[in-house]
Amino acid sequence: MPSDARKVALSYIDGYSTCDYCLGTLHMNKKPPVRKFLESLSKFLGMDFAILTNGCREAKFAIMHSIASPGDTIVIDANKHYTSLVAAERAGLRTYEVPTTGYPEFKVLPQAYAEAFEAIRRETGRPPALALLTHVDWLYGNLSDARAVGKICKEYGIPFLLNTAYSSGRMPIDGKELMADFITCSGHKSWASGAGTIGILALSEEWIGRVLRPSRGYSLKPIEILGCSARGSSTLALMASFPHVKERVGHWEEEVSKARWFSEKMESLGGIVQLGEKPHNHDLLRFEAPALDRIAKVHPRRGFFLYEELLKRGIVGIKPGRTRSFELSTYGLSRDQLSYVIDAFREILKTYG
Amino acid sequence: MPSDARKVALSYIDGYSTCDYCLGTLHMNKKPPVRKFLESLSKFLGMDFAILTNGCREAKFAIMHSIASPGDTIVIDANKHYTSLVAAERAGLRTYEVPTTGYPEFKVLPQAYAEAFEAIRRETGRPPALALLTHVDWLYGNLSDARAVGKICKEYGIPFLLNTAYSSGRMPIDGKELMADFITCSGHKSWASGAGTIGILALSEEWIGRVLRPSRGYSLKPIEILGCSARGSSTLALMASFPHVKERVGHWEEEVSKARWFSEKMESLGGIVQLGEKPHNHDLLRFEAPALDRIAKVHPRRGFFLYEELLKRGIVGIKPGRTRSFELSTYGLSRDQLSYVIDAFREILKTYG
Repeated sequence: MPSDARKVALSYIDGYSTCDYCLGTLHMNKKPPVRKFLESLSKFLGMDFAILTNGCREAKFAIMHSIASPGDTIVIDANKHYTSLVAAERAGLRTYEVPTTGYPEFKVLPQAYAEAFEAIRRETGRPPALALLTHVDWLYGNLSDARAVGKICKEYGIPFLLNTAYSSGRMPIDGKELMADFITCSGHKSWASGAGTIGILALSEEWIGRVLRPSRGYSLKPIEILGCSARGSSTLALMASFPHVKERVGHWEEEVSKARWFSEKMESLGGIVQLGEKPHNHDLLRFEAPALDRIAKVHPRRGFFLYEELLKRGIVGIKPGRTRSFELSTYGLSRDQLSYVIDAFREILKTYG
Repeated sequence: MPSDARKVALSYIDGYSTCDYCLGTLHMNKKPPVRKFLESLSKFLGMDFAILTNGCREAKFAIMHSIASPGDTIVIDANKHYTSLVAAERAGLRTYEVPTTGYPEFKVLPQAYAEAFEAIRRETGRPPALALLTHVDWLYGNLSDARAVGKICKEYGIPFLLNTAYSSGRMPIDGKELMADFITCSGHKSWASGAGTIGILALSEEWIGRVLRPSRGYSLKPIEILGCSARGSSTLALMASFPHVKERVGHWEEEVSKARWFSEKMESLGGIVQLGEKPHNHDLLRFEAPALDRIAKVHPRRGFFLYEELLKRGIVGIKPGRTRSFELSTYGLSRDQLSYVIDAFREILKTYG
């Protein structure tokens, strides 16, 4: 989170200071310029309109709750974030899981969506109410071919929700090009933001009336965000981070190149293997590390030794206790910093291995 | 928001830092001690269990969505916050409004709940699924007799939701004594907190299984908060503010006494009349001010003159543009500070009246 975003968040930290000049609902406000920000934001995402939500999961639920009815089936890929399933469950929906290619790459193939649509039609006599694709998943950092899935959804006439919790804000996204009806984003995950959770729900023109339908009694208040969502400093933090985000997505190719280079170096240490797509297309990487796991079996601190050894060297980000496999991100680190991380792993392996 | 809460919020401002030592869901975490905090919190509210939500409205929706089904009727008082209606609408519920006594006191009488229950039974053949009472409303700052409503709800066997957005955190609340099944609170409104919106959903033992039911696939993740709610600095801010809140509710009688005194002084200026309960039982006060409204009709800045005149004197809190009637709060201000406000109104009336 950049320092200017921190400063803004702090100055708006008192409850509802965002709402001092309310024009009826958060996304219409001009002071602070939330409305203008959201116009730029939806353009940035290649979508027609965007509102803020309390988080990405809340955006997914709002879409599902608006366009599907209890008992309907929706399609979700096996690399989903758990909240996609929980949102569907809360909305009373049945979920059909699109499988991955399994170990070691765990890729979601677009054609599997067509197969899922056909299977659901056979089973239920109806098409699914929605297809959700996890653009980049947290588990393997795989970048799915969203445009190909979008195209299949269009062919079958099925609304397409692209969950970009780990992609938009880090890499360029064009919702129109990816043929998405809905894009959901995570402010606190991938938009250099924080100060409370925040999400983005971006959508195409044709769905605005349905998903952002106002209350019968309060014509400016969208029901699905209960009137207003992130009515606090998280909105201001996201706004302040936006210029940084716009700048940083321009360096995406270098981020991918660094991630690939890091992965190769880690694998060259021996006993550490990258899972997920190869060559990799994202900064999130999962490694399985039998060499480290063997150490954990005999180390007095068990699996925590890795976290603690890294912490000693000023390296954080890997979950405490993990050695068999763990995920990390190379985002925004320099090659020098990444070399330092690689050297740390080399040292740890040498000391205990 | 106290300075220590601001500091804590700032140190946890990076997305998900709350979750570094996740034990499966936010309300179970021990580091930071969210679990312990929630135990103290539910005790403080006189309830059996409490979880955090993204806001008070989100807590109300979670309850309605859990215990009522689309088409069910629920009872809500006419002094409700608009989000009570929007939450019901989102859950597909019919609402039956309990009227107030009207101008000038606008009081909600407990007996009106019994009448509503009878009317609904006559009309639909079934009791309502829920009764919601706005403990203190933002419009008039009226303190309703929650215990009397709670007793009627118990007699009729109807679950009772007490919305304490403007009471808990300011004044002592004992949910058991008020016979509430559910209590909803607003962290950023009445708990000296901020850093994003946050709410509390407190409930009695018997409803835990239903309202906090976990996902089928993720046994620690409550569906109604989509797994975890305020996973950011707002949680830490609320925790840091809690000792202040516990202390300040002890001074509630003095707060009420100040509000009454302030109201009398304002009325003594002439052309300004307090609406709502008299004598008043809360720091939120609404005045109707024909004397100020007459000025607005001829002032070049129209209704904005009042806001601007007060701002010049370092007084904020009244919505820009309002003169006919406006609400304000005397909470936490000293009698000296309130005298300064009264003097400002006197001066403004003298200058323009």
